[in-house]
Amino acid sequence: MPSITGRAVQVTDKGGPFAVVQREFPSPGPGQVRIRVQACGVCHSDAVTKFGLFPGIVFPRVPGHEVAGYIDEIAPDVKGFNAGQRVGLGWHGGHCTYCRQCRQGNFVLCENQLISGISYDGGYADYVIAPANALALIPDDLGHVDAAPLMCAGVTTFNSLRNSGARLGDTVAVLGIGGLGHLGVQFAAKGGFNTVAVARGADKGVLAKELGAHHYIDSTTQDVAAELQKLGGADVVLSTVTDAGAMEIAVNGLAPQGRLILLGVPEKPLTLNTMPMILGERAVKGWPSGTGFDSQDTLEFSVLTGVKPRIEEYPLEEASAAFDRMMSGRARFRVVLTTGA
Amino acid sequence: MPSITGRAVQVTDKGGPFAVVQREFPSPGPGQVRIRVQACGVCHSDAVTKFGLFPGIVFPRVPGHEVAGYIDEIAPDVKGFNAGQRVGLGWHGGHCTYCRQCRQGNFVLCENQLISGISYDGGYADYVIAPANALALIPDDLGHVDAAPLMCAGVTTFNSLRNSGARLGDTVAVLGIGGLGHLGVQFAAKGGFNTVAVARGADKGVLAKELGAHHYIDSTTQDVAAELQKLGGADVVLSTVTDAGAMEIAVNGLAPQGRLILLGVPEKPLTLNTMPMILGERAVKGWPSGTGFDSQDTLEFSVLTGVKPRIEEYPLEEASAAFDRMMSGRARFRVVLTTGA
Amino acid sequence: MPSITGRAVQVTDKGGPFAVVQREFPSPGPGQVRIRVQACGVCHSDAVTKFGLFPGIVFPRVPGHEVAGYIDEIAPDVKGFNAGQRVGLGWHGGHCTYCRQCRQGNFVLCENQLISGISYDGGYADYVIAPANALALIPDDLGHVDAAPLMCAGVTTFNSLRNSGARLGDTVAVLGIGGLGHLGVQFAAKGGFNTVAVARGADKGVLAKELGAHHYIDSTTQDVAAELQKLGGADVVLSTVTDAGAMEIAVNGLAPQGRLILLGVPEKPLTLNTMPMILGERAVKGWPSGTGFDSQDTLEFSVLTGVKPRIEEYPLEEASAAFDRMMSGRARFRVVLTTGA
Amino acid sequence: MPSITGRAVQVTDKGGPFAVVQREFPSPGPGQVRIRVQACGVCHSDAVTKFGLFPGIVFPRVPGHEVAGYIDEIAPDVKGFNAGQRVGLGWHGGHCTYCRQCRQGNFVLCENQLISGISYDGGYADYVIAPANALALIPDDLGHVDAAPLMCAGVTTFNSLRNSGARLGDTVAVLGIGGLGHLGVQFAAKGGFNTVAVARGADKGVLAKELGAHHYIDSTTQDVAAELQKLGGADVVLSTVTDAGAMEIAVNGLAPQGRLILLGVPEKPLTLNTMPMILGERAVKGWPSGTGFDSQDTLEFSVLTGVKPRIEEYPLEEASAAFDRMMSGRARFRVVLTTGA
Ligand SMILES: [Zn+2]
Ligand SMILES: [Zn+2]
Ligand SMILES: [Zn+2]
Ligand SMILES: [Zn+2]
Ligand SMILES: [Zn+2]
Ligand SMILES: [Zn+2]
Ligand SMILES: [Zn+2]
Ligand SMILES: [Zn+2]
Repeated sequence: MPSITGRAVQVTDKGGPFAVVQREFPSPGPGQVRIRVQACGVCHSDAVTKFGLFPGIVFPRVPGHEVAGYIDEIAPDVKGFNAGQRVGLGWHGGHCTYCRQCRQGNFVLCENQLISGISYDGGYADYVIAPANALALIPDDLGHVDAAPLMCAGVTTFNSLRNSGARLGDTVAVLGIGGLGHLGVQFAAKGGFNTVAVARGADKGVLAKELGAHHYIDSTTQDVAAELQKLGGADVVLSTVTDAGAMEIAVNGLAPQGRLILLGVPEKPLTLNTMPMILGERAVKGWPSGTGFDSQDTLEFSVLTGVKPRIEEYPLEEASAAFDRMMSGRARFRVVLTTGA
Repeated sequence: MPSITGRAVQVTDKGGPFAVVQREFPSPGPGQVRIRVQACGVCHSDAVTKFGLFPGIVFPRVPGHEVAGYIDEIAPDVKGFNAGQRVGLGWHGGHCTYCRQCRQGNFVLCENQLISGISYDGGYADYVIAPANALALIPDDLGHVDAAPLMCAGVTTFNSLRNSGARLGDTVAVLGIGGLGHLGVQFAAKGGFNTVAVARGADKGVLAKELGAHHYIDSTTQDVAAELQKLGGADVVLSTVTDAGAMEIAVNGLAPQGRLILLGVPEKPLTLNTMPMILGERAVKGWPSGTGFDSQDTLEFSVLTGVKPRIEEYPLEEASAAFDRMMSGRARFRVVLTTGA
Repeated sequence: MPSITGRAVQVTDKGGPFAVVQREFPSPGPGQVRIRVQACGVCHSDAVTKFGLFPGIVFPRVPGHEVAGYIDEIAPDVKGFNAGQRVGLGWHGGHCTYCRQCRQGNFVLCENQLISGISYDGGYADYVIAPANALALIPDDLGHVDAAPLMCAGVTTFNSLRNSGARLGDTVAVLGIGGLGHLGVQFAAKGGFNTVAVARGADKGVLAKELGAHHYIDSTTQDVAAELQKLGGADVVLSTVTDAGAMEIAVNGLAPQGRLILLGVPEKPLTLNTMPMILGERAVKGWPSGTGFDSQDTLEFSVLTGVKPRIEEYPLEEASAAFDRMMSGRARFRVVLTTGA
Repeated sequence: MPSITGRAVQVTDKGGPFAVVQREFPSPGPGQVRIRVQACGVCHSDAVTKFGLFPGIVFPRVPGHEVAGYIDEIAPDVKGFNAGQRVGLGWHGGHCTYCRQCRQGNFVLCENQLISGISYDGGYADYVIAPANALALIPDDLGHVDAAPLMCAGVTTFNSLRNSGARLGDTVAVLGIGGLGHLGVQFAAKGGFNTVAVARGADKGVLAKELGAHHYIDSTTQDVAAELQKLGGADVVLSTVTDAGAMEIAVNGLAPQGRLILLGVPEKPLTLNTMPMILGERAVKGWPSGTGFDSQDTLEFSVLTGVKPRIEEYPLEEASAAFDRMMSGRARFRVVLTTGA
């Protein structure tokens, strides 16, 4: 099949503006598919592309790692997917299959991992060409716009939670109610956890309860660690914020054997008081995101239990405004680009 | 404090009838409390007492291991509980604290475990005297009648499920929708599992859906293993039935790495086809019940998520009719005695 | 590169004799390598090929799934391996990469799994053509003859043991001291477990101690369950036998929370007394083998700790005699074919 | 039985000198035993007593939480132990049995935990009176002097290792080869781990190999993180040092999914670079020590596998010199007081 023409919103060079361009999208190469994008979430990590925060990014580059759309064309050697299927593509943009981690089945830790929108052009576009081994199937009952944010904000919170060791009824606190946190709260509540939302300001409390939180802590007026301890301590804290200080405080709110799970990179190194960690078998653990299959599980869970992202939609051509809106921290809660395709 | 007079419904001797008697309930001995019973569930395992199915039962014996009531009196050496508190007592009726299992904290596996209503007189009575280390605190928002069945039918299903290794969104099948199963289905649904109820007859399907099941399989007309495999296989099967054949079939409905968890003793030995177990890393595991603390977690989870037993109430004096009703298998779903105290 | 000529020992048709033939071995296809075989273990499961015990085996077929040799030629698309490397090939003969299990990284549970010597021609030959994703690298310090049996008998026992949940110092019993068992005993002893060997006859006791067992139980004269219970019960039993009765007895020798792990298929269905399973949280679990990477870990552990298979060597042309010797159950302990290449 | 007279080495007041005094040791109270001390290890944590580092220490206080001796007298209510038995007493000096953690069986996390030599008088004495629920039985094949250091330095390293999730053959690094580390290295080697010792100076390398280490890294001349990564990264690092910087470096030496386990409190807060933690699912976890039963497991494992502490013996009356020797960091490797009883 021939290449096809479409729009892409690319970052021309490191720190440069977004530019809407027309370009060719060739047929997918071996192991790849071409996706006709319907929706693409705008994630804080798109700043990595915009500002060239990882080494080796080749510009111009199209950001976007919360992609939902149709398989438009599929390489002849790809098995397990078919043209026309609805698929999602997330941060994990493909794995090599042969490194030590891949040979153990830990694809998300692949030593040669590709990242959508960073290693190759992502979802701020009409088409994306991506490795089939990064894809998730989207369930029939889930729309593209809802699926998109679940491909990164969703899978990151869902997958870290389901692998956290938390048992039914345990206390799970979510730090931050933004793009990730507003999904984390829902997942925790639907998963049978005693769910605590922690955020800044009293007004977020109403939202937190709507999202299913059983408790809300306003970190601007309350002592977060003390409030968590009143509830018996948090067995798990999912940190979706970038404020190192907030994470450090949360360690003091952990129950014995509790663990703080870092989903977002703090803006500076964490400084940990280790005494309560040692006396109480507490832990701090990082978590990256998930594979395409993990995302597929996330989508299926969301349909099963009714978890839905709250979004603000922008047309693809307004990607620059959408990105600014996301960066402002005032979006409620996830910004999604739509192609109108 | 002096002893106190009250009613007890005792089995006079092995296989004999229930007799309502007036008797003295002395002050609790060291480590014990006296509970003023408000409600007591009637469990299939009460047949152990009634028919003397365990060795060494001393008759007359008062059955009942789903007890809810007030602490009426407390021995001076007991710490951690206070007179007047609302407490539950389940199958696990106390542990020795010094055997190998107790020293490891595995109280439910205590080598000298006491069983309520079997080792000592249970809850078919106005009062029960029991070790404090077997108690659960009942949350304020949970009534005695609702709490009672959660102390055995509840904790057995809840505790096995939360320790099954199932992760959010996994497929959990519950075999049987009776006293245990109707709670197991609710726990699984509220815990974020893809919940499959399996029972006999199409009419149970409506109930299953009301309880939150996402799928229902009628074992009288459907191939249970094939239906489970259509859903991708069950990651966990909780077996609450006594039909060995039904359990054997369920093994064939397990997903790879799935496990069948036995909560009820089958009426005859299980005969397992091991080939699918070996090729698919499948397992069959037994599960006993839980400690007082496990029960307390069960009660708290039930309040948190709205799980409620469905019950038929009988006054204490009609214990014999209540027991017959339970044994008939037609109760919907749990029979509870109330003292009217 | 052209095809190459060599010997193969093939089963002409179901149940037929072994025939030594000269044949061509073509260049490897996409994703494959051609291995110049140095040694190949003779496993009881080779009877599957010999007697056509699995459906769909295409005859003539060359058995052999404990292969050690050099990569002779490698397809251009294969990454992560190089021609000339020393590699092993086991029972797990390749996975599809795209089924549900592969997408989750559970390659050994691949729905389209290939089995060496069954799905394609195996190691009773001068050359084997196999998928690269099934390979293990052989450490420099390990010879081909020693490596071969570790590719099936080794990885099956090692991998089941390391995934059994046994902790340092736990009691691990190995049922049977044959091809698998004599490795299982060594792995358990070198892994810091209180190691119990169980076999038939007093003479095996000396061997068991040589292999590192701390205890030996002669099942022809001792009550296996009672002897295990005297030791506190087995936390893990690895069953390498085919005698269903021996497995059933072992369940009664489990400690609370102990698990019987089935590595060999019993000659008839298992009949389980479930009461001790339920009261003691005991489990019966199947275990298949391991991936190429699991085998590589097995080889590395063997070098690290000095585990060595005991073998009887036969030249490739005497494969028929070697097979009979293995089937007799009198080999000590593993029969290995060598090509003299 | 009457009280008995003996020596005790007490810290008169916070920061004051050790004083050898004669005093009465009364009969044990409810739940207690009196131990006739044979040996007591000198641990760095004895500085807590010496310098009053925990709040609320009542002086004079006798330090010592690595006690080995005979049960001299036993309270009538104590079950599971007998007078004359050989027992050990460690840092975990008793638990309340009724707090939330105790009710869950997590005794080492008891909210009312007693610490030997801090909450009550410890083992720098001829006798110790201690709760029976803190005791370990000493195996027949283990002498008192060898048993003593295993009660704290031993159980801390053994118990953290066996609960670390490390699997057979994983790479385990031990930071520091002192009182704890020289045992940690032995446990790791005997437990079938690829064992890496990390310490200061080339001379420690010889010792490390004698203790069973497969690899040695000299942190004064080598890049610890880089050397660990050359080995594939550490799956587990047990940190027995107090140098925060050394711990921070070790995080960079972790394999994907690796965890740094803190056994010793660093002299200042840890500052963590979280990016490798997030991208690689790495964790930092604290670990306290273990219960009496955990210590008993430690002693049994040591006998089973031949792990032995290396010690310098001092008579009880020279406790002050022994303490100074330990604090100097030059002891090889553990200082033990003996009573000569
Ligand atoms: Zn993202
Ligand atoms: Zn890779
Ligand atoms: Zn019951
Ligand atoms: Zn006990
Ligand atoms: Zn084999
Ligand atoms: Zn597959
Ligand atoms: Zn210590
Ligand atoms: Zn406590």
